[in-house]
Amino acid sequence: METRLLLLEGRTDVSFFLPLIKELYGFKEAKCEDLPVLEEGPKKKGLSRAICLSKDDTRLVVWHANGKDNLKNALKLIFKAIERLEDTPAIIGIARDVDTEESILNWAKSTLQSGGFEPDVKDGYLMINGIKVIPFGIGEVDFDARDIDLKKELELLMALLAKKESSLSKLEGSISQLRKDLGRKLTPKDIMHLLAIARNYGGDSMSGLYRNFIEKLIRENRELVEEFLNESGLKEFLNAIAR
Amino acid sequence: METRLLLLEGRTDVSFFLPLIKELYGFKEAKCEDLPVLEEGPKKKGLSRAICLSKDDTRLVVWHANGKDNLKNALKLIFKAIERLEDTPAIIGIARDVDTEESILNWAKSTLQSGGFEPDVKDGYLMINGIKVIPFGIGEVDFDARDIDLKKELELLMALLAKKESSLSKLEGSISQLRKDLGRKLTPKDIMHLLAIARNYGGDSMSGLYRNFIEKLIRENRELVEEFLNESGLKEFLNAIAR
Repeated sequence: METRLLLLEGRTDVSFFLPLIKELYGFKEAKCEDLPVLEEGPKKKGLSRAICLSKDDTRLVVWHANGKDNLKNALKLIFKAIERLEDTPAIIGIARDVDTEESILNWAKSTLQSGGFEPDVKDGYLMINGIKVIPFGIGEVDFDARDIDLKKELELLMALLAKKESSLSKLEGSISQLRKDLGRKLTPKDIMHLLAIARNYGGDSMSGLYRNFIEKLIRENRELVEEFLNESGLKEFLNAIAR
Repeated sequence: METRLLLLEGRTDVSFFLPLIKELYGFKEAKCEDLPVLEEGPKKKGLSRAICLSKDDTRLVVWHANGKDNLKNALKLIFKAIERLEDTPAIIGIARDVDTEESILNWAKSTLQSGGFEPDVKDGYLMINGIKVIPFGIGEVDFDARDIDLKKELELLMALLAKKESSLSKLEGSISQLRKDLGRKLTPKDIMHLLAIARNYGGDSMSGLYRNFIEKLIRENRELVEEFLNESGLKEFLNAIAR
């Protein structure tokens, strides 16, 4: 049994990644066994409850950090807990919004160094005591949209996916009118609210919209999802942690 | 100590009512003591966790029904649990979206009758074994808006409040463009997504937006909130359960 870990920023990221890992890579949710308790301490300083997935001989444990402010801390928590894991994980994936960070690899390296670890820098990943640590920056995509502020975050990927799928194409006039009315470009999160309108989404959480949208697209237009994964660099990252 | 109960449809309703009850009527959250366990059974068939509020000699216990489909069932659950309460409640408030229901009073009456109770119908409320049951229909408001589908639901009240507060006034052009692009009127829920855009709301849940918006308005423009409560009939209902 090989164990892999995946650390995400928050629960919207979980709603985004889980359908991809389950539907495209065939992982299924499983009971979490033999996991050290990592969820200690106050909520905003800890990790989410673990979600355990398994496929054949691979187990993938997914956490989120309860928000980006706690991501560094969460990564250190995971490393400190690894010695209590029965099997040392082979791979640890970490995905975060790019935001204004120039190099996610450097960010991960310096985070681990500040926790007292000494990672070796390889081509696109880090090695620590035989564990491969793969950081991924969410939001590096080419997106041709004059009314949208291209903030490098999860919602920009979602906006790209929505654009490909054409849910939003009928709202182009509205998007440009909104830009005028607001006196600013629309953020990717704004675009998500328009997606909710376009799809008549009635749920309370935006992350539920992301999950539904991705699940439906995978079922109905898998090719388009694959194209999107390639363009956003996600394919390589997902292959590394889930294949 | 007088006990009162309030049953709401779902958690968005809790986000709407709680700030009003706390900020305008001075109730504070308190530990729930001596409450019978009502949360038995599968989640969708039960009640939410109770929220207990208190002010002076009055305790107000608030539940939601996990969605409108379970509201009838939840109301019956509460009535069956009342005999296990140390103090018989004096008042039970029930608020639900009007939707297409012609009379919320009749709806409450027939719901209770189907649970084996025999309510007496009074002017705007029911009496059962000395308990005053006050039903309230959410969404009965005059709203002059040609691009909005006036669905009688919580979000219509929120849309009215947003209109009064003028968060949305700069988006009038966008609203009419959206109507054209969508080929339909906007629903009150659509208007809430536009409110999220107008206010640059970054949270995951729409109910969080409602709560923030109401809290802020109460702080900054209490008169406007009072006017809104009067117009929507909420003032009378809130006075009955929280004054």
